[in-house]
Amino acid sequence: MTLNHSARGVYPIAPTPFHEDGRVDLASVDRMTDFYPEGGATGMTVLGVMGEAPKLDGTEALELATRFIRRAEGLPVIVGVSAPGFAAMRSLARAAMDAGAAGVMIAPPNTLRTDDQITTYYRQASEAIGEDVPFVIQDFPQTFSVVMTTGVIRRIVQENPACVMLKHEDWPGLEKISTLRGYQADGSMRPISILCGNGGLFLDFEVERGADGAMTGYAFPDMLVDLVRLQAEGRRDEAHDLFDAHLPLLRYEQQQGPTGLAVRKYVMAKRGIIASDVQRKPGVALTAKAKAEVEYLLARLARRDRRAVKLAA
Amino acid sequence: MTLNHSARGVYPIAPTPFHEDGRVDLASVDRMTDFYPEGGATGMTVLGVMGEAPKLDGTEALELATRFIRRAEGLPVIVGVSAPGFAAMRSLARAAMDAGAAGVMIAPPNTLRTDDQITTYYRQASEAIGEDVPFVIQDFPQTFSVVMTTGVIRRIVQENPACVMLKHEDWPGLEKISTLRGYQADGSMRPISILCGNGGLFLDFEVERGADGAMTGYAFPDMLVDLVRLQAEGRRDEAHDLFDAHLPLLRYEQQQGPTGLAVRKYVMAKRGIIASDVQRKPGVALTAKAKAEVEYLLARLARRDRRAVKLAA
Amino acid sequence: MTLNHSARGVYPIAPTPFHEDGRVDLASVDRMTDFYPEGGATGMTVLGVMGEAPKLDGTEALELATRFIRRAEGLPVIVGVSAPGFAAMRSLARAAMDAGAAGVMIAPPNTLRTDDQITTYYRQASEAIGEDVPFVIQDFPQTFSVVMTTGVIRRIVQENPACVMLKHEDWPGLEKISTLRGYQADGSMRPISILCGNGGLFLDFEVERGADGAMTGYAFPDMLVDLVRLQAEGRRDEAHDLFDAHLPLLRYEQQQGPTGLAVRKYVMAKRGIIASDVQRKPGVALTAKAKAEVEYLLARLARRDRRAVKLAA
Amino acid sequence: MTLNHSARGVYPIAPTPFHEDGRVDLASVDRMTDFYPEGGATGMTVLGVMGEAPKLDGTEALELATRFIRRAEGLPVIVGVSAPGFAAMRSLARAAMDAGAAGVMIAPPNTLRTDDQITTYYRQASEAIGEDVPFVIQDFPQTFSVVMTTGVIRRIVQENPACVMLKHEDWPGLEKISTLRGYQADGSMRPISILCGNGGLFLDFEVERGADGAMTGYAFPDMLVDLVRLQAEGRRDEAHDLFDAHLPLLRYEQQQGPTGLAVRKYVMAKRGIIASDVQRKPGVALTAKAKAEVEYLLARLARRDRRAVKLAA
Repeated sequence: MTLNHSARGVYPIAPTPFHEDGRVDLASVDRMTDFYPEGGATGMTVLGVMGEAPKLDGTEALELATRFIRRAEGLPVIVGVSAPGFAAMRSLARAAMDAGAAGVMIAPPNTLRTDDQITTYYRQASEAIGEDVPFVIQDFPQTFSVVMTTGVIRRIVQENPACVMLKHEDWPGLEKISTLRGYQADGSMRPISILCGNGGLFLDFEVERGADGAMTGYAFPDMLVDLVRLQAEGRRDEAHDLFDAHLPLLRYEQQQGPTGLAVRKYVMAKRGIIASDVQRKPGVALTAKAKAEVEYLLARLARRDRRAVKLAA
Repeated sequence: MTLNHSARGVYPIAPTPFHEDGRVDLASVDRMTDFYPEGGATGMTVLGVMGEAPKLDGTEALELATRFIRRAEGLPVIVGVSAPGFAAMRSLARAAMDAGAAGVMIAPPNTLRTDDQITTYYRQASEAIGEDVPFVIQDFPQTFSVVMTTGVIRRIVQENPACVMLKHEDWPGLEKISTLRGYQADGSMRPISILCGNGGLFLDFEVERGADGAMTGYAFPDMLVDLVRLQAEGRRDEAHDLFDAHLPLLRYEQQQGPTGLAVRKYVMAKRGIIASDVQRKPGVALTAKAKAEVEYLLARLARRDRRAVKLAA
Repeated sequence: MTLNHSARGVYPIAPTPFHEDGRVDLASVDRMTDFYPEGGATGMTVLGVMGEAPKLDGTEALELATRFIRRAEGLPVIVGVSAPGFAAMRSLARAAMDAGAAGVMIAPPNTLRTDDQITTYYRQASEAIGEDVPFVIQDFPQTFSVVMTTGVIRRIVQENPACVMLKHEDWPGLEKISTLRGYQADGSMRPISILCGNGGLFLDFEVERGADGAMTGYAFPDMLVDLVRLQAEGRRDEAHDLFDAHLPLLRYEQQQGPTGLAVRKYVMAKRGIIASDVQRKPGVALTAKAKAEVEYLLARLARRDRRAVKLAA
Repeated sequence: MTLNHSARGVYPIAPTPFHEDGRVDLASVDRMTDFYPEGGATGMTVLGVMGEAPKLDGTEALELATRFIRRAEGLPVIVGVSAPGFAAMRSLARAAMDAGAAGVMIAPPNTLRTDDQITTYYRQASEAIGEDVPFVIQDFPQTFSVVMTTGVIRRIVQENPACVMLKHEDWPGLEKISTLRGYQADGSMRPISILCGNGGLFLDFEVERGADGAMTGYAFPDMLVDLVRLQAEGRRDEAHDLFDAHLPLLRYEQQQGPTGLAVRKYVMAKRGIIASDVQRKPGVALTAKAKAEVEYLLARLARRDRRAVKLAA
């Protein structure tokens, strides 16, 4: 099962569950891996930035990816392989593919500036990991400080047959989706899958603009699944009603960096998906005030989405 | 009328209305200035980043600020005076105060890095403009790339008697408010006013954390006024109900840079507050798709807030 | 006298002399303006970053530029007009040209990232100031954080007839000069003048690579003049002998920011070109240790260049 | 043999020699390791940025460090362990120390901004690798975009008993050395070793300001050794004469990034220290023009330093 440009639906960004002492919590890894497809996910992504991947050493990272892949039993798993250099990227990418990954995701190093630097980087990365390895561009300027125009994305796609997907999290980004889909329509770019990040903050309109779905970590990925499905069925108002019901919490989770992750893990732990909301050091924990705010948001959400009812009890 | 730490409520960030040919639209300036206090605003802020201040030359900037101040007739007006150097900052600040401004707002230049660089900058800025001129710190790291800890903000407050307000738009920022209010409670920092920006995206909780209100540009500042009032009256659920009704649109407007401003001006023009949504070059205009999305959001909002009814007709 | 692509030789970057109390020292402005052509300069540049231009307000800046231009009596003067927005840039550029400037210099704002952002910026800037105003691109990534490829520079040149010169201070930058001259040779770019900055640290080889000279602020611009002349006469070894004699001091002056400027002004004051080495606030003054180091370097230089003899006495 | 604050002299930054096909050239590793102490080096540093460390994968990095350490037979070897996260840093640091390293060097990730972020990072890093592992702070703002004040360096030193050395490559940086030595003199900071980088561009004065020597990669580390020795013997003029003779080449090598490394490796290969000047991809090779410039500089150097005579033949 290899990733290609026809990928659709929701690929949750899996956080890495830890025990209190900092060890990876493998039982929670398994439970989370079971939960995602039960909720309708069509794939999953591991070792992303919000998966605390940089906090793992090389051995841990590969073991974790392998655990996810085996447990997922056929659900395509994308493995983040961003690394300071191509040798380390290649090692992890090859090992992950050998373990059964569907593809890999590559973020640009934050030193890149010019269009040529960015396209050259992806060209060299694809050569380094092997052109048989499907890869995803991660376009996330707020975090990586690398700004990719639609023209640059098109160049990467055209120069690299192995590029099959864009993880879209530019902000603002709606016109970017429309422009890229226009490139496909006018024949200047071959088709790619576009899955959206940014915690889903604009997913309601992103799918209307032509995105294929989401790749993000909101603690109710099953809601994202429903949203994408409702839009695909043409039930626009229902899709927005559902989205709007979640927006206060989703927005609250979309605080950048470890705070947002803390909210996500807190709610996932409440939902029973993972055992604990602890982050490996250096991380943050929610304050009592923040927990109370999340509880309040869950209670309000419970009035409009049954999934939140027992959490708010 | 001079700004001090007791400022509360909503200070809308006034956009600058332009004619199609790029001239400042003074009639719209007047209409907007009338609209704000009618909607309950307790002050206003002009020549901010989202006010397209950097696109004005020195003469235009001062003329515009003066027009706002005279028309506002007693409503306190804060004037943005951020400049590449202290001589230009001083010129504008002195002239604005002479024209009747209540205070000035100073953003840090994006070359500042260390704690000492930041505190020294504000010390020198206050000396340059005169220590009789009340000033507002603008803490907006996503845009300015300058990160101020709560400790640094406290140092600025303690070292500069003229510092009376924080425009808070760090993100995430809820704990920052709690920490700063804690400094006041333990006596290590004198009281300041905290008004929140970021389009109001977290205003529902920011006021609960102790913020005094908002200084931002959402196209329904009268809703922000109601929100702050409801929270002050202890009507928490109603406050959140109102906020949540607006959140889909508010979130849509909170796209960074000229896109967000285009949404804001588009809605303000629809509301009749300004004549046109045009931006001075270089600017952006909403695409047809984006306009349709805004219309859809307004139609949905109209079901929950009467202010939007005639816009959605 | 209008700047064009045939400009050659040395255009010193003029510092702004100040009195101890922070006022501009006009007598020193005059003396410096006389000194440059006496030393062989073929032009001069005022209101650059190292000219403390951002510390002047708008009125001062124009008055200063005008003073330089009038005194220079026919020597072409380039005026730095970099500004946060196009209205302010236009105001200064038009006024400077009216006062007799030969052209203007434009640095990119440090928020630009992509190739398109950079080329669009220069296109809009040229439109804003008027396409009859010759302009210089300032390519200085270490200070401005904007990286321009040779392809981007070519696009700016080809899209803007008014672009006549590159102030080259990328680092490393030797291959950049060779590539740009190659573009001219293969007909893909019309000719431009290339004058080099960076304190002259690589000027010995830059002129061999095809640069037309220097635009920088080293305290012995007359040495730079001799270097360019010797290279033009094919006296390579003599050129390097002269350069190498100055390199220890030139390197010492090439400390980034206000420290380097302090060295420059200190030596210029010793040479009698300006009355005082004071910088307008915020600035730095040389420590006693630093002054002693400069004196030591001047004493060593005096053994190889007569210009330094009386300074070392 | 464990690194401590009394380290003095010259620790060359060892480049990583590669074969044309990208494999590490172990024979050259051995030859280089022999060369350094023969030239008077008192230690060496491996896996630095200019050692192309990020291009190695984890296994290669450890194998290379081990090879250096074993061959060095008692010469203290510092291993660069900068990593995206603490788990990977710990793995490499512990393994390197087990293999006999004298200490490790840690550069700050380029996302750090505030004083507290920087000091917290070093505190956590030291805890992660173990407080028994001596470490070196790498202060290199031009490359890492992290600005450390002298106050921050003092906090790191005082909070971390394992911090024994500063690799000083701020620019300008002379006053920084004086200030830090002042902290030691007034008792507010315990003694540390200060070795200077930046290609040695200011080493002539850095040792006069109190630096203990150099940690940098100039292709004539034996010259740096002589310079430090001459200064220690009070032979100031001779020290500067030697330094000035090398400055034109040293300056040429001090071009940032892969160009400077290309010059360094080219000269080292000419000197017979390594077999080839090839860089692992992505790297750069010197153009014919650049090689001719280096040859010219070597020929000129040969007139003043015998070490260059046979290279210039």
